[in-house]
Amino acid sequence: MNQADIYHVGLAERSYDIHLQAGCLENIGAVTRKLFPSAERCMVVSNDIVAPLYLDVVEKSLATAGWKVFKHILPDGEHFKTVDTWSAIMDALMDSRLSRNEPIIALGGGVVGDMTGFAASCYRRGIPFVQVPTTLLAQVDSSVGGKTAVSHPHGKNMIGAFYQPRLVWIDSNVLKTLEPKQLRAGLAEVIKYGAIWDREFFNFIEDKAENLLSLDEAAINKVIVESCRYKAEIVMQDETEQGARALLNLGHTFGHAIEAMTHYTAYLHGEGVAIGMRMAARLSEMRGDAPQGTEAAMVKALIALELPIAPPTFTATEWLDAMGHDKKNIGSRIRYVLLKGIGQGFIAEDVGNDEIVSLIESFKDIT
Amino acid sequence: MNQADIYHVGLAERSYDIHLQAGCLENIGAVTRKLFPSAERCMVVSNDIVAPLYLDVVEKSLATAGWKVFKHILPDGEHFKTVDTWSAIMDALMDSRLSRNEPIIALGGGVVGDMTGFAASCYRRGIPFVQVPTTLLAQVDSSVGGKTAVSHPHGKNMIGAFYQPRLVWIDSNVLKTLEPKQLRAGLAEVIKYGAIWDREFFNFIEDKAENLLSLDEAAINKVIVESCRYKAEIVMQDETEQGARALLNLGHTFGHAIEAMTHYTAYLHGEGVAIGMRMAARLSEMRGDAPQGTEAAMVKALIALELPIAPPTFTATEWLDAMGHDKKNIGSRIRYVLLKGIGQGFIAEDVGNDEIVSLIESFKDIT
Repeated sequence: MNQADIYHVGLAERSYDIHLQAGCLENIGAVTRKLFPSAERCMVVSNDIVAPLYLDVVEKSLATAGWKVFKHILPDGEHFKTVDTWSAIMDALMDSRLSRNEPIIALGGGVVGDMTGFAASCYRRGIPFVQVPTTLLAQVDSSVGGKTAVSHPHGKNMIGAFYQPRLVWIDSNVLKTLEPKQLRAGLAEVIKYGAIWDREFFNFIEDKAENLLSLDEAAINKVIVESCRYKAEIVMQDETEQGARALLNLGHTFGHAIEAMTHYTAYLHGEGVAIGMRMAARLSEMRGDAPQGTEAAMVKALIALELPIAPPTFTATEWLDAMGHDKKNIGSRIRYVLLKGIGQGFIAEDVGNDEIVSLIESFKDIT
Repeated sequence: MNQADIYHVGLAERSYDIHLQAGCLENIGAVTRKLFPSAERCMVVSNDIVAPLYLDVVEKSLATAGWKVFKHILPDGEHFKTVDTWSAIMDALMDSRLSRNEPIIALGGGVVGDMTGFAASCYRRGIPFVQVPTTLLAQVDSSVGGKTAVSHPHGKNMIGAFYQPRLVWIDSNVLKTLEPKQLRAGLAEVIKYGAIWDREFFNFIEDKAENLLSLDEAAINKVIVESCRYKAEIVMQDETEQGARALLNLGHTFGHAIEAMTHYTAYLHGEGVAIGMRMAARLSEMRGDAPQGTEAAMVKALIALELPIAPPTFTATEWLDAMGHDKKNIGSRIRYVLLKGIGQGFIAEDVGNDEIVSLIESFKDIT
């Protein structure tokens, strides 16, 4: 097997490692046995797309390491990220009688990880959980940092907890079975790190777009490693998003609105974020925060990654209403992550509704 | 107004004060305004017993201090402590569009506090919450320490979070409208502190039983103050119940089983705990952990407080099954809080099912 890259997320008693290694999936049994020496049982939560591909390997590895394994399979898709689906996980946990020291393992993408993490945080007021992310988006973003949630009909990820995993176990080999659309959606979150902090990384991703889309091992491993490093650093600085961590929401206020207005069926999360980053870039230019050309640079990179760039057509009122419920607001004001240029994100607290209306209108004719 | 007693629960960034003062209910507006200077809106959650009595005072006080107040009223009773009731609080929070820095206030007993706290912990991954406990049980126990939860059909308080309030605001005057049955149930949790740690306090409660039952101000204030002091100390030592805090579960493994087997309708929580403490005392004697007379001393005190002492009739299998889901288990073993005598609790990890069977059988003839 390849060399492992390991990042430590240092959060006092909530610290954990991110372990990246091609082919490591089959070692999940051994590592969890070592991490939870006194536990007997565990539960693997996956979905009906991932389970047929990888649950066998995981289950075998766990059984070999002496685990009694319970399983719970979710329906795939963002629109199943609901209180009802979470409640069914809770029922399965109750039936399994898992104890406080026995772990739950999330095998899947961001939706599986977010819901499993929230279930782990609630069952017996918290049991250990392990992230085994199988999509690029989950590997570079959602599996690290402890944001767990389900959505409410009135807002995405509005019900959840900050609850850190005890381990993030990333096998880049599993990306080989990932739908190209899902791979591209993950790359939206990767280029986001570049857009916020690192113009060089942004350029690297654009330059290597073809290699990334064809899963060239060196390129894909570099972006996973760098992304996890960024994510781990920011989570250590600001675990519960009181400040700097909010920058990671670049494109997300618009993106969540896009997902909500289209009922979580038309766009993947990463696709919404891609369009949202383009909108944030334009807004930054319109306000004079970013130099001209910022939106063009963003658009060029997103096109190279074969991501969507055109906001869906809704009225300004519909946009504002959909964004009003975004949970990063302070008071009644909406906070936006904007750019001072590619590689430099910042939080704007003073964006007026009229500016959003102008932005939405500006997309009417020329997209 | 009387002098205030204030205890500080020191938990780093999760620290807060317990404020005890007869008549302080009408100052809830001023204190929350000071605590959350940048917030505009808040939500008060209460139930249909407490709201008609005290919601007006609270609402007026909040409005006077400049708060925009949302309200949500729950049905009263332990059997409404469900995912569905919690989900309705989440809907109300979504409708209110409360922001991350805007607080939710629990006005009621333990059920209201536990559910409101759990809702606060989940909404937008956590908003501030304030406990205004209106039952003795909530004032001396459940409002302090951050244990929040709802119940699952298969086990009490199985779904929840450790989530500390930002303030506990206790007005002992409200006990004047409390049903005598509820007052007695609260005294069960008070005498528990004595049984675990302090024989002198135990004796004081027994001696003053009549004064306490008639709400003599000096006596009742002393027990609230002492109980909050015990609770605050143990929470500071062991916030998430990894060790010493588990002692507070004296009588709770049996008590939860009693509540569950009777579907949360026949016994108040404190009544279940009273019977459970008596059972724990007998088990301690049977095992030779406690000297003879321990159970008799417990029974005498419980009778003085007019609390029930007779376990309901169920088979040993029913008891074991009902206790199997109690969330304080490690692995498949059930942990019991037992006594080395009145004033000295300890955790027993080695209680066999056969001992429980003998205990249950011993209650068959002589109760």
